Amino acid sequence: MEEGNKVKKYLKEKEGLVTRLGYLQRILKEYKVPVMILFEGVHASGKGRLANELLLALDPRYTRFYATHNPTETELRKPFFWQYFINTPSNTEFAIYYRSWYSLYIAMKNKMVENERYNGNKVLLKEIQAFEKTMKEDGAVLLKFYVEIKPEKQKERLQRMYDNPRTMWKAQEYDKANDKRYQKDMEEIVAEDDSWHKIPYELREKAINDVLRIVVAQLEERLKEEEKKRAETPPPNDGFFDGSFPDILTKYETSGDISKAEYKDRLEILQKEMRDIQYTLYEKKIPLLIVYEGWDAAGKGGNIKRLVQQLDPTGYEIHTTAAPTDIEIRHHYLWRFWQNIPKTGHIAIYDRSWYGRLMVERVEGFAKNKDVKRAYEEINDFEESLTNFGAIVIKFFIHISKEEQLKRFQERQEDENKLWKITDEDWRNREKWDQYVESISDMINKTDTGKAPWVIINGNNKRYARIKALETIRDLCYKEFLNVP
Amino acid sequence: MEEGNKVKKYLKEKEGLVTRLGYLQRILKEYKVPVMILFEGVHASGKGRLANELLLALDPRYTRFYATHNPTETELRKPFFWQYFINTPSNTEFAIYYRSWYSLYIAMKNKMVENERYNGNKVLLKEIQAFEKTMKEDGAVLLKFYVEIKPEKQKERLQRMYDNPRTMWKAQEYDKANDKRYQKDMEEIVAEDDSWHKIPYELREKAINDVLRIVVAQLEERLKEEEKKRAETPPPNDGFFDGSFPDILTKYETSGDISKAEYKDRLEILQKEMRDIQYTLYEKKIPLLIVYEGWDAAGKGGNIKRLVQQLDPTGYEIHTTAAPTDIEIRHHYLWRFWQNIPKTGHIAIYDRSWYGRLMVERVEGFAKNKDVKRAYEEINDFEESLTNFGAIVIKFFIHISKEEQLKRFQERQEDENKLWKITDEDWRNREKWDQYVESISDMINKTDTGKAPWVIINGNNKRYARIKALETIRDLCYKEFLNVP
Repeated sequence: MEEGNKVKKYLKEKEGLVTRLGYLQRILKEYKVPVMILFEGVHASGKGRLANELLLALDPRYTRFYATHNPTETELRKPFFWQYFINTPSNTEFAIYYRSWYSLYIAMKNKMVENERYNGNKVLLKEIQAFEKTMKEDGAVLLKFYVEIKPEKQKERLQRMYDNPRTMWKAQEYDKANDKRYQKDMEEIVAEDDSWHKIPYELREKAINDVLRIVVAQLEERLKEEEKKRAETPPPNDGFFDGSFPDILTKYETSGDISKAEYKDRLEILQKEMRDIQYTLYEKKIPLLIVYEGWDAAGKGGNIKRLVQQLDPTGYEIHTTAAPTDIEIRHHYLWRFWQNIPKTGHIAIYDRSWYGRLMVERVEGFAKNKDVKRAYEEINDFEESLTNFGAIVIKFFIHISKEEQLKRFQERQEDENKLWKITDEDWRNREKWDQYVESISDMINKTDTGKAPWVIINGNNKRYARIKALETIRDLCYKEFLNVP
Repeated sequence: MEEGNKVKKYLKEKEGLVTRLGYLQRILKEYKVPVMILFEGVHASGKGRLANELLLALDPRYTRFYATHNPTETELRKPFFWQYFINTPSNTEFAIYYRSWYSLYIAMKNKMVENERYNGNKVLLKEIQAFEKTMKEDGAVLLKFYVEIKPEKQKERLQRMYDNPRTMWKAQEYDKANDKRYQKDMEEIVAEDDSWHKIPYELREKAINDVLRIVVAQLEERLKEEEKKRAETPPPNDGFFDGSFPDILTKYETSGDISKAEYKDRLEILQKEMRDIQYTLYEKKIPLLIVYEGWDAAGKGGNIKRLVQQLDPTGYEIHTTAAPTDIEIRHHYLWRFWQNIPKTGHIAIYDRSWYGRLMVERVEGFAKNKDVKRAYEEINDFEESLTNFGAIVIKFFIHISKEEQLKRFQERQEDENKLWKITDEDWRNREKWDQYVESISDMINKTDTGKAPWVIINGNNKRYARIKALETIRDLCYKEFLNVP
């Protein structure tokens, strides 16, 4: 009787919470706030029920649900955070994670899932911190629930599953030793990070309301912040150019001249080597990412063409980076690049890349100053998560002089077959040459890491630039091959 | 010497072909013509080289490359055409397929790949025809190349692969018996379908030009057609309403009344059954698709909520169908629904669906008359490819009277918590009630197939509609479970 009254009380409270949550979802969508809510908990702890109740309270049009599962072959051929990053919500969505990167991390730590690619677990814990930081700084609300259940109650629930012929097979999948290890690891994680919310699952209606109440309270708080922010004048978006980074392009570039005849011979040999390298990457299961950045008309496209000419087309992809689509713009700017991370053994070539954040987006003010400032670290973290996985990352900046660019623009305008290559935007970018020099120098300075180095190549001589790029790829790959048996 | 001259001649011709192809790609993009080019051929026939040469001639920004591979677990858990349909080009893209649905079909036919889900090969051949027809009618250029090589030349190439330590492993993967079976099957296919282009691969430069020449010629032809079409006055888009389909909704609907108390009892039992059904689907590896269509305010959302309330959230997804995004609009209208096909054992619920093509798109004229006319067959083919795979497909139309709709609209406008649910569009749609009745009647009449039936439920009484939907799902699933051991 008393329990019955409690339930009624909770059901009544729930009604109000659900209505308010519906309102908060609609209004936060207007404020472009993405919301990420994750549930962890032992087997049969009730986290599925709680996640489903939350789902039911939300508008399915703007809600994603992602369940961590036994990794597929494809997932095992991508870096750890791939499946999660591509499943982050847009800034008009809520995402609910049923088991999350924590479950996958623990499964790898306890060797329930292949983990030969990561040296130790510290690396993954650091990636988790970087990922959550990145999401929060990008404006996401992140809520983490750990559902707790008493051992006797868990046992009772498992028994019920056994007893139902329809769910017996599911109960049989329960691995007690593994579940205990999971519990131990999760309890440690939760103890060390006070952003977790513990939900004791005893009376169902109470547990549901505990979750809803926390979600509503956090969203209310966020709504207030957003309203306050809207009332304030936003800081100016001036790209903070102060000349503090003098041109390092000319200083660090390599340059040279190669005759036509020599070029032909060396190119032929290098292209054969590229094909051999491709097969070796495949055999050794190493993903290779090659970034091409450079001035308009620097010769990136022609350079890439020489690189892939003798490659097997089933093993490489060229990704060109244009203005983001309407869906891309609603996600973290790295989201669209995570979509195209090559799987093990494959080559991805980027004709422009995530570095747009630190060049065009900075110069044009598409990214706010504070976003640019944190992008250096985010990009380093991103590339580290690739190299942690064993990927080779090579970044080229093809540098040409302002005079050489002018010459090439004019050539394009005079050749009817090349006219389409030159746009008004190219001319506009050229006017901002100095701001680009500062941005690029700053960028290279802050993102030239040991594992993902920048190579600045003078492209005034196209033949030299092509040969130099291929030689660099060859040398860096051969060096890496020595580390991988 | 003579060979050297020939090569020179071909290289010169190639230059012109490549320039022209570049132009054709740019102009056909303006005309919104998607282009699909596939390469089939035995092992080491040179199809990779030819595909790569074509790739190099195209603009990577607007070119996709898709290689058919050994199916992944995920692919085996989806219908045959899933991987291909989601990889069709948008109307501003070229797509090159290195091995295609033909290779996959032959691999299944010869039991190189799991095929227990398809009863006989005729079904898949029919699906291939339907797929190609659908793409072409949607405006795609489809070019199919079969690359032929003489046995002694193939042997020589394989030997070269063996001799290179970097490619030896690749040569070792060569399965002679399987390759012979592939060749036999492909030759039969090519003999029966004169849209194939056979490319004998002897002199490389000749073979490359043979491909480029055919591609250029076909695109030139298509360009002419497009120019002609643009010059003509397009036929009017009047939705061809002639009253030829009287309201069949009221005639075939089931309706009833259920008391509150009875509703509560029956709902509780049915929701438990839904959860059992979910586990059974999972155990038997059957995907389930449930489509909800119906008038605005018919109660689709509330009905779906009752359906999923007790389900395990890791096994179902609700897909709501809103206006297409900019990327979706550039693809075949079924493209976005193929993205969300559930894998085996999972449930996908569609709150509105591909039937929008035959309702809102017809009434509003977003789809041209000829597109609407072919959509009936396309949708039947689409659903057949799902049921061929073993999926259960259930389609609900929740019907309410025009008076009931008005009452609900007014209720929504008077309740501040429901106000957001009603939009101007709802009122506008209501004005077109009669055109909708004709469209819907026509649609149900033409797409009510034995394997993917329509169930018309009167939703004036929400309780009845919810119970009826759940009972229908239960009965159709139990019926299907009898067929699957």
